[in-house]
Amino acid sequence: MVDKTKYKVLFDIDSPADIRKLELSQLKTLCSEVREYLVDVVSEVGGHFGGGLGTVELTVALHKVFNTPDDLIVWDTGHQAYPHKVLTGRRDQLHTIRKLNGISGFLKRSESEYDAFGAGHATTSISSALGMAVARDMKKETKNVVAVIGDGAMTGGMAYEAMNNSGLRKCNFIVVLNDNRMSIAPNVWQISNYFTEMIAHPEYNKFKGAIWDLTGKLDHFGDRLRKVVARVEAGVKAVITPGMLFEALGFRYFGPENGHNINQLVKLFEHVKQLNGPILVHITTEKGKGYKPAEGHVQRLHASTPFDKMTGVAHKKSGGLPAYTKIFGQALVELVKENKDIIGITAAMPDGTGLNLLQKEYPENYLDVGIAEEHAVTFAAGMATQGIIPVVAIYSTFLQRGFDQIVHDVALQKLKVVFVLDRAGLVGADGPTHHGSFDLTYLRLIPGIVIMAPKDESELRDMLYTSIKYDGGPIAIRYPRGNALGVPLKAGFEKFKIGKAETIKKGDDIAFLAVGVMVEYAKEAAAILEKEGINCEIVNMRFVKPLDEKLLDDIANRFDKVVTLEENTLVGGFGSGVLEYFAQHHYKNDILRIGLPDNFVDHGTQAELHQILGIDAEGVVKQVKEFYSGRNLKNEVVA
Amino acid sequence: MVDKTKYKVLFDIDSPADIRKLELSQLKTLCSEVREYLVDVVSEVGGHFGGGLGTVELTVALHKVFNTPDDLIVWDTGHQAYPHKVLTGRRDQLHTIRKLNGISGFLKRSESEYDAFGAGHATTSISSALGMAVARDMKKETKNVVAVIGDGAMTGGMAYEAMNNSGLRKCNFIVVLNDNRMSIAPNVWQISNYFTEMIAHPEYNKFKGAIWDLTGKLDHFGDRLRKVVARVEAGVKAVITPGMLFEALGFRYFGPENGHNINQLVKLFEHVKQLNGPILVHITTEKGKGYKPAEGHVQRLHASTPFDKMTGVAHKKSGGLPAYTKIFGQALVELVKENKDIIGITAAMPDGTGLNLLQKEYPENYLDVGIAEEHAVTFAAGMATQGIIPVVAIYSTFLQRGFDQIVHDVALQKLKVVFVLDRAGLVGADGPTHHGSFDLTYLRLIPGIVIMAPKDESELRDMLYTSIKYDGGPIAIRYPRGNALGVPLKAGFEKFKIGKAETIKKGDDIAFLAVGVMVEYAKEAAAILEKEGINCEIVNMRFVKPLDEKLLDDIANRFDKVVTLEENTLVGGFGSGVLEYFAQHHYKNDILRIGLPDNFVDHGTQAELHQILGIDAEGVVKQVKEFYSGRNLKNEVVA
Repeated sequence: MVDKTKYKVLFDIDSPADIRKLELSQLKTLCSEVREYLVDVVSEVGGHFGGGLGTVELTVALHKVFNTPDDLIVWDTGHQAYPHKVLTGRRDQLHTIRKLNGISGFLKRSESEYDAFGAGHATTSISSALGMAVARDMKKETKNVVAVIGDGAMTGGMAYEAMNNSGLRKCNFIVVLNDNRMSIAPNVWQISNYFTEMIAHPEYNKFKGAIWDLTGKLDHFGDRLRKVVARVEAGVKAVITPGMLFEALGFRYFGPENGHNINQLVKLFEHVKQLNGPILVHITTEKGKGYKPAEGHVQRLHASTPFDKMTGVAHKKSGGLPAYTKIFGQALVELVKENKDIIGITAAMPDGTGLNLLQKEYPENYLDVGIAEEHAVTFAAGMATQGIIPVVAIYSTFLQRGFDQIVHDVALQKLKVVFVLDRAGLVGADGPTHHGSFDLTYLRLIPGIVIMAPKDESELRDMLYTSIKYDGGPIAIRYPRGNALGVPLKAGFEKFKIGKAETIKKGDDIAFLAVGVMVEYAKEAAAILEKEGINCEIVNMRFVKPLDEKLLDDIANRFDKVVTLEENTLVGGFGSGVLEYFAQHHYKNDILRIGLPDNFVDHGTQAELHQILGIDAEGVVKQVKEFYSGRNLKNEVVA
Repeated sequence: MVDKTKYKVLFDIDSPADIRKLELSQLKTLCSEVREYLVDVVSEVGGHFGGGLGTVELTVALHKVFNTPDDLIVWDTGHQAYPHKVLTGRRDQLHTIRKLNGISGFLKRSESEYDAFGAGHATTSISSALGMAVARDMKKETKNVVAVIGDGAMTGGMAYEAMNNSGLRKCNFIVVLNDNRMSIAPNVWQISNYFTEMIAHPEYNKFKGAIWDLTGKLDHFGDRLRKVVARVEAGVKAVITPGMLFEALGFRYFGPENGHNINQLVKLFEHVKQLNGPILVHITTEKGKGYKPAEGHVQRLHASTPFDKMTGVAHKKSGGLPAYTKIFGQALVELVKENKDIIGITAAMPDGTGLNLLQKEYPENYLDVGIAEEHAVTFAAGMATQGIIPVVAIYSTFLQRGFDQIVHDVALQKLKVVFVLDRAGLVGADGPTHHGSFDLTYLRLIPGIVIMAPKDESELRDMLYTSIKYDGGPIAIRYPRGNALGVPLKAGFEKFKIGKAETIKKGDDIAFLAVGVMVEYAKEAAAILEKEGINCEIVNMRFVKPLDEKLLDDIANRFDKVVTLEENTLVGGFGSGVLEYFAQHHYKNDILRIGLPDNFVDHGTQAELHQILGIDAEGVVKQVKEFYSGRNLKNEVVA
């Protein structure tokens, strides 16, 4: 547990109003203590960590200068917002972060009035803050609005769309660019590199040196030349600054400023608060600042499991089953080894998607396009026209950003792009912003796409192989976050027949039609039901689109009771596809669809959530029994 | 018909290879003839017109310099590509453009090998062209890749995502920025304004003038100073150009160049073709160039109905029923008159959405954010947090771009944003890139959203009013392109009960559950069926989400045969929602779902397409008869 006695200030800060009571000289102490507290707590409970250590001074400065929650602070994504949570009344709940019924790992409006806007997906802050500022002006209010965005999120097109709109009505708002040059993956933000180079532009510096040098030696033209030079400098300075892009977009630019100098930050924010129009404050920070083991390990401490406070080394996990992510990454490496026309594309998630393995083995067959899912999809479509096989690996929830591009750029043109959706279904601790609850529905509506879900890691490998060999257009594989089942992996690959399901076990009483991870629950549920004399057939569907129609005909004829199982919303998902097929063929079976409810699901471990939602083995048993016993005969229409 | 005798060159050009045979001196003639031909044909048949007149010289120059179709030209959106169609073998089909079985109004890979990438949605060209270039390098080929993008499309975030990626592997490709400063709506591209200002920067010009002035008068320091000046100029030029942004993003910049000087364009492309790395060629053109009536009327000639060739005035349409678009625009003006907390937001479609009416009456309650649907949605979410009521009016097909933002930024936070989806269902001549075939599915999967579809224009008004009064979170209205029914409009508005359907006519034999425009077809079909003794109940659902469950219970109990009707894909749409509800309640009715098939639908008039797909009144009658007579009893399982 946390030793409170070693903190001088932190435990007096119950809300930002308490920060505003502190002397400037006390802020530095507060910053050290916030940092220490973060290390204390997060080392025990785990969490996104490095980002927050980099924003301690920024957070303190913002709450010191701005009158939150009346003034609005919008944090992009929220990884950077742990200090904000600690300082806005959630200090004592920090140890519950990302746990069931605990506080969220991201910003959340329903959690605190200080969370002006919730976010788990990147690059939403400038748009939403600009919306708040325009709304404020419409309401003739005077509050301040501040967006804080990291340099990683600046690769997203929405940031540009929003900045391009900043000139709208010239309204007052402040964007803080928190530039740690260490976004989740190595930074692909070109503009940032350009600025760095430009400041060091040899011609620019030579010019400055030479002209001042010269003026000292000129006598009768000295005055005149000095005037010219002054004018030149003014002209050049007016247009050449690291803030050029932002100025082009209508912002007044301040910076770059050291984001760890609390006094300077306070002074700067006090200043810009007085100014009109859109302001961009560029600060540079270090991810993991002040905690040695974090400073050295960007990736490790982006999202962290509990770790040893002194060394930064993560505590060993029990288990040791391979993650689906790694299985995919390794399989792709094997396939690329045989076929150099394959390319793996990630949107700033090399590690999260397993593509880091490809990057290491075949860097020429790997690309990171930054947090830019829209571009990733259309870029892949362009490659596909030239006979390259793009494997676009994006989390289920983030691929929502590329939805239109899948429809319009890939499927409409029947281009062969392989979509690999990691984190499909409930992701656990990251919660509702990150659950992959919708992909079976938003993909299933797309004409001509093939959708697969493996029941285990061996099938994942075969499905990837099947995708590479498939020539009919877009094809998608979705699988969950976390560890696979530990089934033995065969050497090489098997090509699946498109649209062919696998019957795992024959039965007489109830047919389970299961997708992906739900096959395992179906098997466990069937085992329980069988003890009670209910004999279940178990089908691993493998394909959500196209459905195995021959199998469905057979099931419809042999079973009265059919259960569909999927870890996807029940609205328009796999089960609905079965309903559609059955209705089309006048089948009148009694169908229970098991899946995710039509509401946003909170955070917790995957097992906890499955249990609460009644979709684990025991939940399935319970749902099946209730549905088929509680059958509402009075409402039934006899054909 | 076209008088071929007046053309000297055009009818010898059957493919771009024929252009490459022409002397430079003949190109100017070709350009005039292409322009004249466009005016001749489009004045008769209608079509997107102004964009094409602006790109005649560009098109001729590109096909002259590049070896198409081996070299790849990617046109953004395709409005600008009429000359390209004329010159790539489709000259004699131009009069069929946008007509059933005729050529497409956009680029289409399946239509021509010269159409390297199809597009109807804006801002896809740089991403797809970059994909092609990277693919070419992987395959060790040498072809050239050119993307042509308009300044309007440059407001889309994907353009920035793609440009930010241009440095990837430093591969060779060319982006042509076709800057006509007249995107569909007045340009909101800030950067373009910035460049204009900068070129005229007084300090920059004063400096240039003064320093040259001075060097002439200096004697013993003259040489040295001249060197310094040269160095200064080089330094300044290196960083201050209108292409600064593009250079920041890793492009070599050329321009701005007059896009109507064919000889200069050919020279420029010949030059840049030799260069390595990403190149940006900035040309300025005039939309409607060379056709006086078009030059003066940007909006009128963006998409044009047939018109008088001499005056440019559109031929009078028959009919005269008001368009849904206009009804919406007028209703919103009425509502804003009473409540200044409402704001109408468009993504570069003020006229297409009817928001031009609001812009005119209440400019303070209107915003155009540019072609930036992602930003539009999240911006609206930000406004909603402050108690402003954003009405986001975006075509059904374009709102696909904002899908993730509706889920993650609006619905998850239960924010009150009103989405108005014009062009829902089949749009007719614009074809598959523009059909709004999917919105009922992609919106229905979102927890907590309300979805409405009016049966006529009076309901559209009431639904808009209902939205404004609704406080439960996001709410959407979808309605078709084209004219409303001409029903009388009452003064003022009625507030609908959320989730309450309207029974239009009682019946005994079959229940029609219809959504939106399909109510009218259901009524017509019922009238036909009634002559044959089949008595139909007709329900106007009004709400696709939430469904009127009480009504569905009643229908399930009273009817064996139920027909759902929607102008949306049958995959996961309204009918699937009915199936889901019926399955959940063990209802065993025989349900026929009528709607759009699970494939992309080509272009043609709306009436033609409805007829072909069998969803007009006669199609509905036919489908109903077939379904219920051909009922496949042998497959039926008796419960």
